[in-house]
Amino acid sequence: MVLLSGGLDSATTAAIAKHDRFELHALSVDYGQRHRFELEAARRVAESLGVVRHVVVSVDLAQFGGSALTADIAVPLDRADDEISRGIPVTYVPARNTVFLSLALGYAEVVGAGDLFLGVNAIDYSGYPDCRPEFIAAFERLANLATKAGVEGTTRFRIHTPLIRMTKAEIIRRGMELGVDYGLTHTCYSPNSAGVACGRCDACRLRRKGFAEAGMKDPIKYLTKSGA
Amino acid sequence: MVLLSGGLDSATTAAIAKHDRFELHALSVDYGQRHRFELEAARRVAESLGVVRHVVVSVDLAQFGGSALTADIAVPLDRADDEISRGIPVTYVPARNTVFLSLALGYAEVVGAGDLFLGVNAIDYSGYPDCRPEFIAAFERLANLATKAGVEGTTRFRIHTPLIRMTKAEIIRRGMELGVDYGLTHTCYSPNSAGVACGRCDACRLRRKGFAEAGMKDPIKYLTKSGA
Repeated sequence: MVLLSGGLDSATTAAIAKHDRFELHALSVDYGQRHRFELEAARRVAESLGVVRHVVVSVDLAQFGGSALTADIAVPLDRADDEISRGIPVTYVPARNTVFLSLALGYAEVVGAGDLFLGVNAIDYSGYPDCRPEFIAAFERLANLATKAGVEGTTRFRIHTPLIRMTKAEIIRRGMELGVDYGLTHTCYSPNSAGVACGRCDACRLRRKGFAEAGMKDPIKYLTKSGA
Repeated sequence: MVLLSGGLDSATTAAIAKHDRFELHALSVDYGQRHRFELEAARRVAESLGVVRHVVVSVDLAQFGGSALTADIAVPLDRADDEISRGIPVTYVPARNTVFLSLALGYAEVVGAGDLFLGVNAIDYSGYPDCRPEFIAAFERLANLATKAGVEGTTRFRIHTPLIRMTKAEIIRRGMELGVDYGLTHTCYSPNSAGVACGRCDACRLRRKGFAEAGMKDPIKYLTKSGA
């Protein structure tokens, strides 16, 4: 069971799971994100990986508000690297990965899957608390207490986060080795109406920096030049 | 932040929170349950308690299937007390309380609430793993690792489960003392098309037994006589 956002990290995570010979089920969440283009990207990635089934579940976190990704709060642009890595920005969505993992857990239990893959990263990231190893360990523990399959011992739930200690450049290199087509992915928090990436939000900046450090060309288009 | 299902337990929990002088925010989840009448009951209960705001969030757990409450699986009827208390029945919904608490956590963080109230019970219940104290403790730990407010220390999240060690009769007596109108609540898993309770599913049987043991009259109607 892999959580596919449509971004670079989850596509790479799914490719790693496939390489490790897991049969893939994919789950994406339409949570009211302003960058809903990523759900189309998730469909393209799921298809390219030949998943057994890809489910898109809707849950309107925008009803709660409180984040630049779901409410009428501006997405920060043109922040320097040290700004991005300092503190938790307004693009944080309250309890997002807890909600996503809960949904993945429910779906996994129904299909009899014990291995949940999540593309979180705690190196080149935005400081979100629910991307850290201690959060993942706590969720894994919870999963085995929360479910019939966990309690009865028919399934041992494990949360796999193969990217958690990698730099963005390392992730991209690994994905390239595994044949991931990053042209299918969508990363930007603030795309234009045609879905073209801004190149200026934290997500775009981390991605572009990763490609630059990996010495690779990013196949997607941006509205602004790199380093602008 | 109180999770209101529309049932007897969550109504009592909300009344306890109000009695303890908490200002109430309420969250209900439309998860594709066949007994959707409970959401109307949740609205009635929220109104009667004078909550600040009641949000109903939709997330279609029926897409995953795997439960008699969301898929085309028959709800068990006329089970004896010892059958109800043995094992985990087909009405179990995979990861339901994990999903519900995750959503409540997100909403709570946005409104700045640290106290989450949940009407779970581990005495007169259906053996669901996500109603047990060890699950609740694990979620509370997770909540403080998963969130900006928890990590930065601005909010300490606590999961309150005032009913967890009470019998159904004790819950009803406490609710009556606090003035809960149980005529507003809905408990049945398998109501008729007008929302009238079957009286025969596990949820109805636990409720009727509770009222009988408390020596109180249940104000709602049933399609079958008690003990039938």
